[in-house]
Amino acid sequence: MDLIKVSANSRTSLVAGAIAGVVREHRRAEVQAIGAGAINQAIKALIVATGYLKNDGIYVRFVPEFAEVAIEDKVRTAVRLVIEPTEQSDFSSVHLSPRPDRTEPSET
Amino acid sequence: MDLIKVSANSRTSLVAGAIAGVVREHRRAEVQAIGAGAINQAIKALIVATGYLKNDGIYVRFVPEFAEVAIEDKVRTAVRLVIEPTEQSDFSSVHLSPRPDRTEPSET
Repeated sequence: MDLIKVSANSRTSLVAGAIAGVVREHRRAEVQAIGAGAINQAIKALIVATGYLKNDGIYVRFVPEFAEVAIEDKVRTAVRLVIEPTEQSDFSSVHLSPRPDRTEPSET
Repeated sequence: MDLIKVSANSRTSLVAGAIAGVVREHRRAEVQAIGAGAINQAIKALIVATGYLKNDGIYVRFVPEFAEVAIEDKVRTAVRLVIEPTEQSDFSSVHLSPRPDRTEPSET
């Protein structure tokens, strides 16, 4: 799966579209950013992508991690954001209208 | 619950400690950052806090969102990072030792 590399000059809407597309296809996406400007763009794109995916009924969360990457023979510390869909029901901070059509599984 | 406000000059380790402390106590934390430098510090602190909490067996993910905040009579767009613990088992990208529910060949 491709890593979505974001720079300080990346356009938010383009990155957001890429994130949403990869999550729809692979149920997972990884975004990489190096430096404050790039991380800023990545987070903004994540927020926009979260909205796109929510419209499709896909709720995502992220885990950020550091990654060492070699760029022109220098090792730099990148931030990677791993994006995955989640069960809506286990994320209490997301407020939605109650779903009347949902039947609870009955345990016996 | 207090909002953890991060600036471009915030120290990563202090913010990380604050995030971990609030999550331990309230099972939820919110971090607010305005501008690329502050968002960069917030994300780095999140990564460090994620490590702290993992040592306690608490696995967190976050959802970023925009928030309009008034600062000196001007409306600015902040980024808020909502951090919550998650069920470890539903996050497939986290690699841990094999799950006990896996059936291993029994030694005879």
